[in-house]
Amino acid sequence: MLIKMQVDDFIEELASDSPAPGGGSVAALSGAMGAGLVSMVARLTIGKKGYEDVEDLIEQTLVASEKIRAELTLLVDKDTQAFNRVMAAFKMPKETQAEKSLRSDAIQAAFQNAILTPLRVAELCLGVLELALSIAGKANQNAASDLGVAAQMAYAGVQGAVMNVKINLPSIKDLQFSEEKKTKALAFLKSAKNVQGQVLQEINKLIG
Amino acid sequence: MLIKMQVDDFIEELASDSPAPGGGSVAALSGAMGAGLVSMVARLTIGKKGYEDVEDLIEQTLVASEKIRAELTLLVDKDTQAFNRVMAAFKMPKETQAEKSLRSDAIQAAFQNAILTPLRVAELCLGVLELALSIAGKANQNAASDLGVAAQMAYAGVQGAVMNVKINLPSIKDLQFSEEKKTKALAFLKSAKNVQGQVLQEINKLIG
Repeated sequence: MLIKMQVDDFIEELASDSPAPGGGSVAALSGAMGAGLVSMVARLTIGKKGYEDVEDLIEQTLVASEKIRAELTLLVDKDTQAFNRVMAAFKMPKETQAEKSLRSDAIQAAFQNAILTPLRVAELCLGVLELALSIAGKANQNAASDLGVAAQMAYAGVQGAVMNVKINLPSIKDLQFSEEKKTKALAFLKSAKNVQGQVLQEINKLIG
Repeated sequence: MLIKMQVDDFIEELASDSPAPGGGSVAALSGAMGAGLVSMVARLTIGKKGYEDVEDLIEQTLVASEKIRAELTLLVDKDTQAFNRVMAAFKMPKETQAEKSLRSDAIQAAFQNAILTPLRVAELCLGVLELALSIAGKANQNAASDLGVAAQMAYAGVQGAVMNVKINLPSIKDLQFSEEKKTKALAFLKSAKNVQGQVLQEINKLIG
């Protein structure tokens, strides 16, 4: 598993001449780090003097960010598996008509999975941004830059995941599927840009 | 060392109630992953049919991205060490006048280091963006989304690092130092935004 590798080995593997892991897994990891930073900022706020009034909100945020962090961490490997499944489908035998048909179906199913996986990453990264916004300007001000970085990692995660959706769309034969997923991806991107702008506005009030 | 931790353990540590590692280390890691992806895209281009004309450019990009990747990987730990050094300086004894003076000097030196470290991260992440731009639209088109994610990670790295510079500036007594570093940080941010826009324009031509 990629997430069981050492950080430096993971980056080394990324840099290698193998196409996987690639941008899709990095987008998921970016979002997972964003969620991790939201959790840290929440934990640095709970129980601190001056933040009693927002304690309930921060507690709720922490529960939600930890849930998203867990899922995004798993998606680091799932995205690479989705890519490998596409590669494996292309390697299926294609001698007979029956083989050709099975292979084509497997390729389509694999590409659909390689779209649904980053689409989920985009949705969860948007969730991280919304959590960051919910506590921006309210959580521990000493960790304002950490919350800002959380938002930037989550936003990069949405953008990266949406690129991974887009690059696979032309391979899909089911036009209703591809139209639907494209619309969803662009909606996530639009919301993310909006929320990201609001978070940075709050953070900039604190750190200038 | 943080970079010797497992990826999932690193994210877990990030999410903990300890302020370090925090956003500064994540910004460096984000840039290192961006550099890793630039290297991967370069390696997926070298020796491939149809890319003979750009081989020299791609080879040069690979050498440069691997150099930046190595330094940014080390900066993941250096940023957390810089933060810890500030904390350690605050814990120095302050009973006598001599102790107070030593402590104050140590705090100032530690804060300057905690500004210079993310400033270097910002500079190197900008370097990753420039490398991505130099091969955007020229490198292996199958890896277009990977190059796009590389740029997004590098851009998030610049933004995150600049936030870490900014949050430490008010602690600096040497106003010439702080004015100089602020100007540099804002210049990196401005260039990064510009280069990032150009990279995405090239990538969007390929993946729509």
